[in-house]
Amino acid sequence: MHRHRLTFWFEFASTYSYLAAMRVDEKAADAGVEVAWRPFLLGPIFAAQGWTSSPFNIYPAKGENMWRDMERRAAARGLPPVRRPDPFPQNGLLAARVATYGLTQDWGRAFTRGVYTAEFAGGEGIGEPTVRRILDELGLDPDVTLAEAQGQAVKDSLRRAGEEAQALGIYGAPSFTTADGELFWGDDRLEDALGWAARLD
Amino acid sequence: MHRHRLTFWFEFASTYSYLAAMRVDEKAADAGVEVAWRPFLLGPIFAAQGWTSSPFNIYPAKGENMWRDMERRAAARGLPPVRRPDPFPQNGLLAARVATYGLTQDWGRAFTRGVYTAEFAGGEGIGEPTVRRILDELGLDPDVTLAEAQGQAVKDSLRRAGEEAQALGIYGAPSFTTADGELFWGDDRLEDALGWAARLD
Repeated sequence: MHRHRLTFWFEFASTYSYLAAMRVDEKAADAGVEVAWRPFLLGPIFAAQGWTSSPFNIYPAKGENMWRDMERRAAARGLPPVRRPDPFPQNGLLAARVATYGLTQDWGRAFTRGVYTAEFAGGEGIGEPTVRRILDELGLDPDVTLAEAQGQAVKDSLRRAGEEAQALGIYGAPSFTTADGELFWGDDRLEDALGWAARLD
Repeated sequence: MHRHRLTFWFEFASTYSYLAAMRVDEKAADAGVEVAWRPFLLGPIFAAQGWTSSPFNIYPAKGENMWRDMERRAAARGLPPVRRPDPFPQNGLLAARVATYGLTQDWGRAFTRGVYTAEFAGGEGIGEPTVRRILDELGLDPDVTLAEAQGQAVKDSLRRAGEEAQALGIYGAPSFTTADGELFWGDDRLEDALGWAARLD
């Protein structure tokens, strides 16, 4: 079987990135597609189009319906009831750095799912206390790991991910990109993206 | 079999409303759900949140990807290649009045699909020449029909639809609402909406 390649772009503040993170690997395995996970920060991209908060806060009707949609979709997928972190959106900078580092090791995906579960099933903040607890649960030394994750190499890697996302035309999260230049936006385009990637040689 | 009720809210300028209009009746029949079609104008709702054009024009990266997504989804569904009307978005006021009137008769859905096909498969404007041609193709007298559609009762009905949509929390198109107060936004939520409506008594 050929292995195909899809890049999964996620932002820790993003509710629909949570839905995607919880299912992408299973769906990708079914489709025979290999997926690369790439955390990035949406803040600079949103700021470039004049947004200083989540569009779900800027446009309240859209935001209310997003939360209702999340409740419905979480229930349909067997995820725990959705709880909203306060404040929303959370600042995902530290979590994104740790995930960037963890994805160069073997625990980045488990860490990412742990953060999202804390944030949107637990309603927790995703700052240092939560990050430390999840690292500890993964059997890692939080002090050592946080020092590595906040080194210059990881900071640079995360910044480059954001620049690359913007250059690819990414304007929201989650997004999926293929080797032949297709961009799919949203958890609800995961199936389309996997289908496209599976057709590539 | 119980017949259930879903309201399909559409705006003629909206690309994803086109996708929904071309499939909603077939999908609804499969689900055993009766659907009411309601045209409305998004302009006042967008204006209330500070937008004077389509968000797909205001945010170019989002807009470019929307058109690409439309191309991919049209192809996947066996629809003709997508062509962009110029200007985009089109002013759908006249078409919405005629559809509002036609939906009280037996030709409103065929008229609506005809307008969307002209607009997004033909790349045509949807002003009076196109509306007249479609009415003629449906075997209606364009002069008589346009006079009826521009009477005060139809104008009032369309304005009330917009007010009702806003009161229901609608902020985009297409949207689907259920008798128990659920709101689903987007062609990609049609299956969720039908599933919900089918569970209602």
